[in-house]
Amino acid sequence: MPKQVDHRERRETIARALWRVVAQRGVAHLTLREVAQEAGISHGALQHYFASREEMLSFAMDFASEQTSQRVGRGLHELGDRPHPRDVLRLMLTETLPLHADARATSRMNAAYVLEALHDENIHARARDGMTQGRALVEQLIRQAVADGHIHPDHDPVTETDLLLALTGFTPLIELDVVKPQEALTAIDHYLDRLFTKNDHGPKRARKSPARP
Amino acid sequence: MPKQVDHRERRETIARALWRVVAQRGVAHLTLREVAQEAGISHGALQHYFASREEMLSFAMDFASEQTSQRVGRGLHELGDRPHPRDVLRLMLTETLPLHADARATSRMNAAYVLEALHDENIHARARDGMTQGRALVEQLIRQAVADGHIHPDHDPVTETDLLLALTGFTPLIELDVVKPQEALTAIDHYLDRLFTKNDHGPKRARKSPARP
Repeated sequence: MPKQVDHRERRETIARALWRVVAQRGVAHLTLREVAQEAGISHGALQHYFASREEMLSFAMDFASEQTSQRVGRGLHELGDRPHPRDVLRLMLTETLPLHADARATSRMNAAYVLEALHDENIHARARDGMTQGRALVEQLIRQAVADGHIHPDHDPVTETDLLLALTGFTPLIELDVVKPQEALTAIDHYLDRLFTKNDHGPKRARKSPARP
Repeated sequence: MPKQVDHRERRETIARALWRVVAQRGVAHLTLREVAQEAGISHGALQHYFASREEMLSFAMDFASEQTSQRVGRGLHELGDRPHPRDVLRLMLTETLPLHADARATSRMNAAYVLEALHDENIHARARDGMTQGRALVEQLIRQAVADGHIHPDHDPVTETDLLLALTGFTPLIELDVVKPQEALTAIDHYLDRLFTKNDHGPKRARKSPARP
């Protein structure tokens, strides 16, 4: 195996160990020492891959974002050649929610990272940049959906983007069993049905009237 | 000062010190020792008030919920004798967002508590119960608003409650400067305007048509 690949794989193994520490023991245990133990390597070996806790955290977060993007990519592939923007947005939103094991791991990593960002300027800047890029992608999709007539033009793309992103607030509700996964999906589908005009995506009302007067 | 009050006040002082540790140094520093240092008391003195880290955390979270309720209570008082349900829901939602110093402190405490709940059964049960109670209150308000004709009866109260609660997802977006506080408020107002029928709360369209066809 080429050395570069081996190095990368080792870092990913460590990142997954870090996710397990966050999920199973909590952020209070998120130290180089605990992660080394979870990954089954020595503290010294860990430092060969990550010079600091912050560097390790940032890699683990980048890796989590990558994994989420890959899941969305696979979902997009399943949606076929010209996926409906409603289905694309649904996929992007639901893959950030803790609805299955992989998404739960990356979602918990994300929650830990946001908390770390509150008291670390570098992490704050990185987290903000990552989330701002994601936000821009959603806004672009919504603007295109308005231009293509899928969303009624009286919707403001900025506001609709912010509201869609805010619905990631289902995460703690699902994690704490306050809202069941199926209830969250029902609510999200309901929300998206309202956002998209009925003429091209309403199973019940076919072009009877636009979504809003 | 009666001893009971003094004890309570001391616990509140410690809870606030705990919030500061969470916000300024992170959950990784959330130990009895660090909180004692922040509160300016000895580790032994702290243990006089809290037997364990979990007990301290639970008190700090209960105190945060109490503080949020009190802010909502004061806001309700300002809304007058018969507040409009839209304004009540807006108040309950916005007071959970980090839009000012007090709300930021309790919001960060809440985020830390949710993360702790992932790996601690007792905290999970307490957090779930607290949030389920809050959810029930919101659902009751929405059901009443439907009964009173403020919300169109084709809205499902369970789904609308879940969506409103999910909008607390503005918290990380605001904390990371991805969405500005004013943008979040604009989006929330827009959302509530759509939820409530226009006949009793539409500044622009007075009883021209209901919110949805």
